Amino acid sequence: MNLLLISNSTMAGEEYLLWPRKHIENFLRQHNLSEVCFVPFAGISLSSKSMKDSYDVYAERVGAVFHSLGAKLVSVHTTNDPVQRVKDAQAVVVGGGNTFHLVYQLQTLGLMDVIREKVKSGTPYIGWSAGSNIACPSLMTTNDMPIIEPLSFQTLGLIPFQMNPHYLDANPAGHGGETRQQRIEEFLIVNQKTKVAGLREGCLLWMQEEQFKIIGSKPLRVFEYNKEPYEIEPGSDVSFLLE
Amino acid sequence: MNLLLISNSTMAGEEYLLWPRKHIENFLRQHNLSEVCFVPFAGISLSSKSMKDSYDVYAERVGAVFHSLGAKLVSVHTTNDPVQRVKDAQAVVVGGGNTFHLVYQLQTLGLMDVIREKVKSGTPYIGWSAGSNIACPSLMTTNDMPIIEPLSFQTLGLIPFQMNPHYLDANPAGHGGETRQQRIEEFLIVNQKTKVAGLREGCLLWMQEEQFKIIGSKPLRVFEYNKEPYEIEPGSDVSFLLE
Repeated sequence: MNLLLISNSTMAGEEYLLWPRKHIENFLRQHNLSEVCFVPFAGISLSSKSMKDSYDVYAERVGAVFHSLGAKLVSVHTTNDPVQRVKDAQAVVVGGGNTFHLVYQLQTLGLMDVIREKVKSGTPYIGWSAGSNIACPSLMTTNDMPIIEPLSFQTLGLIPFQMNPHYLDANPAGHGGETRQQRIEEFLIVNQKTKVAGLREGCLLWMQEEQFKIIGSKPLRVFEYNKEPYEIEPGSDVSFLLE
Repeated sequence: MNLLLISNSTMAGEEYLLWPRKHIENFLRQHNLSEVCFVPFAGISLSSKSMKDSYDVYAERVGAVFHSLGAKLVSVHTTNDPVQRVKDAQAVVVGGGNTFHLVYQLQTLGLMDVIREKVKSGTPYIGWSAGSNIACPSLMTTNDMPIIEPLSFQTLGLIPFQMNPHYLDANPAGHGGETRQQRIEEFLIVNQKTKVAGLREGCLLWMQEEQFKIIGSKPLRVFEYNKEPYEIEPGSDVSFLLE
């Protein structure tokens, strides 16, 4: 499989999709992609006018970046037959936002199975934030608020472990809520056989055929049940996560 | 109905359940309670030995506080017939932890309907964090990580609006994820008729017969679709949330 799983679109204060741009460009070039199919369903608050308008704004914003990298972007929300559009796609790109809403839409439109099958057959996949989360077996370990009830928690299952994008080490000072690490450790109590990869901002996982590695400015923090969490340096192979 | 809906058990750095203690004592006295029935199912990480041990530790910890306030505490997890234990209870107390796990357990043990019916008939209810969240129509607007898939998102529905406990104004510096306000605004896009009450730490909602008010050290932040969020000062009546 060919996956580019990005933690976050944008570093605080920076231009949209700036930091991962060179990696996306590289990925597009490696796979000779001239057009990508975009899934905007996580992005529901980019316009106050309507959901449709929010998707339009989202697709335009991401499209401008992909255009600058030499690829055309078509969005699944602008056709009456989104299943066919995915089937015809050279590559699938899933943007961030609310994971629950993304999953609900993919399930009700019948796109979850189509994307899974297509990407498992080799079609390149790029996701960030919610788009990375759904590459996992389930939407669990998302940071997002449940704002809609999906048909189930099952997602694409392209990889056998869970990711936590935007992984964050500390809580805001003086806040009594659980830290991210505590939340993930609770996940492991209930799901003892699943590994969780905490992907900090400014990092991504790159899978290309036999290769699978962590790229970025910070180490990957890996959690397993009943083990001390451990760190994997950027540039390292992370194929052990696939076992 | 008689509800004590607390945002958080403990302020950072303080003794367990310290800040709400005088309010709990007051509530127990107002309702002449000598014994409460405790629901520990949100607290899954208080012991590394087993889930059962975690519940034991949780019940003991909360029990010590209630004992100091003159009330005995029995936990639903120490009987083979939790439904009967709830039915026999003078009051129901639901502690915080992971909302998804709490909801899953209440649903699979058949306790959700029993607690709803009992509290709607007048039995006093105390909850904090996840325990406050499930007093709402659904588990949506929880801050917790989905670590298990509940049978549905529907919860007790004791109140017609959603709460966001541990409501937090800002993100940690330099973090690119959504703020709490952005998350709640996304909820409102999909659920336009529901109000959301952001309950900051150190605050609670107190309902007693005709009375319903916000108590604590900070104002309540109320969110409605297509409106500027607004603040309600501590001590104010909040009955408008029930409309």
